[in-house]
Amino acid sequence: MIKTFTYDDLMELPSRYRGQLLNKVSGLKPANLIGSISEAGQTNLAVFNSVVHIGANPPYLGFILRPTTVERHTYENIKETGVYTINQITTVIHQQAHQTSAKYDRTISEFQAVGLREHYHHGFIAPFVKESPIKIGLQFEKEQYIKCNDTRLVVGKVVHLLLPEAAIAEDGDVALAQLDSTVIGGLNSYYSVDLLGRYGYAKPD
Amino acid sequence: MIKTFTYDDLMELPSRYRGQLLNKVSGLKPANLIGSISEAGQTNLAVFNSVVHIGANPPYLGFILRPTTVERHTYENIKETGVYTINQITTVIHQQAHQTSAKYDRTISEFQAVGLREHYHHGFIAPFVKESPIKIGLQFEKEQYIKCNDTRLVVGKVVHLLLPEAAIAEDGDVALAQLDSTVIGGLNSYYSVDLLGRYGYAKPD
Repeated sequence: MIKTFTYDDLMELPSRYRGQLLNKVSGLKPANLIGSISEAGQTNLAVFNSVVHIGANPPYLGFILRPTTVERHTYENIKETGVYTINQITTVIHQQAHQTSAKYDRTISEFQAVGLREHYHHGFIAPFVKESPIKIGLQFEKEQYIKCNDTRLVVGKVVHLLLPEAAIAEDGDVALAQLDSTVIGGLNSYYSVDLLGRYGYAKPD
Repeated sequence: MIKTFTYDDLMELPSRYRGQLLNKVSGLKPANLIGSISEAGQTNLAVFNSVVHIGANPPYLGFILRPTTVERHTYENIKETGVYTINQITTVIHQQAHQTSAKYDRTISEFQAVGLREHYHHGFIAPFVKESPIKIGLQFEKEQYIKCNDTRLVVGKVVHLLLPEAAIAEDGDVALAQLDSTVIGGLNSYYSVDLLGRYGYAKPD
């Protein structure tokens, strides 16, 4: 049986039901932890499902910041220190990663609260997640306000990239499934992945 | 062995290598096909890895449009007719979905070229993908230019949503793994997914 909804049907659904449904049907999202540190030295860690590739030349990554309490700590820290990290969530740490979405007080580090370890690299002051095989250090570059849903696209320049050498192919491809990558569905479901195939640049015929 | 790259290391890499690497490390992306139709009645189908949830009230989804030839057909059609569809890519059709990224002439329908079937619903003129278990019909709402990488965020209102009733939970959650959902890594790798767990709204302790 196929269930069909029109716009009016959707608008008549209970708000939580509609939220779950629409957050799921748009598809799965990347699973990352963003690490940051305040000027006073307080570290912060938050799960994000909105990291996007902006460009490779120069190497820029973005993420979408929603107007919520938890993520505001990340934003405040980035504004204070200009740096932050993006760290891959694996199946092993996905429950701890999800727990960072709890509304901890600003004086509490989610690293300690959820039991993940800080990792520091070459004097870069933002904390990486030791348990993440892919660790990216970024320097804040710019932000753009996205009017239609009151969010901000925050863009950073990649200044450090750390990952297992064995996972990088000769052409720069990275074996994400081998690195135990996960994805997020909706607001609170986590999935492991298996490689189906990698294909060439498609041509007609 | 951990391989480390600084910003300067990355900038010295061959351009294709750097592109592969950076497109992979930001994490996995949702896998969807966007269906559209020109005023003259020519259908078009294109793979997109950039569909995003904009909001549930009203139900808005977005996608990022890059300045490339293939995707321009989709954009032109949306501008002409005001409607389009977003359709889930499953493991079964992922190779056909990838093939839509080839640069077919505007007079060729990717539906026919790759062997996917058009599905029409309730007089909505944009074609859905028959083989996709999740079919979403949208009406163009607005677009926003994203300066930092010369892309556009195209936002549409969900006017039709079709999916198997058995996959919808009582609270509106959707069993994406059960619906054979896939994700995209980088530009050309496809993955199947398995549910690890679904968790409640996280609270401190």
